[in-house]
Amino acid sequence: MTLEIIPVVGIPEVEPGDDLASMIVTGLSSSDVTLEHRDVVVVTHKVVSKAEGRIERAFDDRAYRELAEREALSVLRRRGDLVITQTRHGFICANAGVDRSNVEEGWAVLLPIDPDRSAHRIRVRLERASGVSLAVVVTDTFGRPWRRGLVDVAIGVSGLPSILDLKGEMDATGRVMNVTEIAVVDEIAAAADLVMGKSGGIPVAVVRGLELTGDGRATDLVRPPEEDMFR
Amino acid sequence: MTLEIIPVVGIPEVEPGDDLASMIVTGLSSSDVTLEHRDVVVVTHKVVSKAEGRIERAFDDRAYRELAEREALSVLRRRGDLVITQTRHGFICANAGVDRSNVEEGWAVLLPIDPDRSAHRIRVRLERASGVSLAVVVTDTFGRPWRRGLVDVAIGVSGLPSILDLKGEMDATGRVMNVTEIAVVDEIAAAADLVMGKSGGIPVAVVRGLELTGDGRATDLVRPPEEDMFR
Repeated sequence: MTLEIIPVVGIPEVEPGDDLASMIVTGLSSSDVTLEHRDVVVVTHKVVSKAEGRIERAFDDRAYRELAEREALSVLRRRGDLVITQTRHGFICANAGVDRSNVEEGWAVLLPIDPDRSAHRIRVRLERASGVSLAVVVTDTFGRPWRRGLVDVAIGVSGLPSILDLKGEMDATGRVMNVTEIAVVDEIAAAADLVMGKSGGIPVAVVRGLELTGDGRATDLVRPPEEDMFR
Repeated sequence: MTLEIIPVVGIPEVEPGDDLASMIVTGLSSSDVTLEHRDVVVVTHKVVSKAEGRIERAFDDRAYRELAEREALSVLRRRGDLVITQTRHGFICANAGVDRSNVEEGWAVLLPIDPDRSAHRIRVRLERASGVSLAVVVTDTFGRPWRRGLVDVAIGVSGLPSILDLKGEMDATGRVMNVTEIAVVDEIAAAADLVMGKSGGIPVAVVRGLELTGDGRATDLVRPPEEDMFR
């Protein structure tokens, strides 16, 4: 079945305390998008964090670095201004996810305290407003080792499996596959970024046609340290 | 603009020496898909490798491991049966990309010798058959450190930038962004996997609506060792 990835435009600048779910409903309406059963609403964490008041002053580079270190649970590597950290959620990313792009000069956006919970709250509100069953994914833009460039990944999930476990299913030749765990919510985040862009100010997209349900959490994606060969 | 991700069904089992481009044209036709200007045709490397004769006998686990080691340029880590390798292309992945799923018992599929070139060849043939300008992405399924689950990434590209460089562009607040290099072909690969699945036997998908052109190569995505903090 064909998948559609629909950008949601017309969401105004989000401020601390704003009712983000209502603003998404407004954006959907001005984008002429009516939510359908099993749509996945993908939201960049930037607007989630802003609505939740997770922004702080960072007047200069030094204040920014201090903020990033404070937000980190631990530091894996340092090189110049770049610090690769583990966040309290378990995610490994640059600068504990603290970001100065798409925010007013002198400010920085932190990650939501509990992005899975943020996703859930938005989902409940959007389901109530639309009357259909939905899923919500909250995303951030992460670098990765070994491969250049950034990709969007899921840091919060509600209403979806975070990992699609094809273990034991048969492949196209009829052989039972060993282990194929697909990080489906990360693929959804990456897909949504193709219409959200980085500079476009499009913080929300709808992924339609997936027909998935589940109750995964983005923190399920954190690889346990004992399984991880690259820490 | 809304993006469509269209699965291409009806492509028969690919054998060494098969004319893959023709088989994709047949599949498009039986899927009722007419290629449009700037469509991106995403092809799992499995069928590319098979068509190019990149399959070998691997009677047992030991033969398979030997094959993987032979295909590797170097080994980064070993744990039990899992070997994390760098391939001759520069990609870092498990078992040098040698894979026994979706292939007959006793056989293994290797990566194409030059997947960028494979992508280019398929692109030229599909452009000739369709009369429109296209891009082609060849994908594989890779694990990553720190995050559980696999995602599809690009290992071959033709007709697209591999990285979208937003350096110096303005973000939504009017600030010039520092460095935002988006691995757009990896996001395309991940998006396509959402309709291709792993067990579905759907080796091709069309991503429509991106409006990107460029002449990147998937090998551009290899992070130079001196920039890489996790080798």
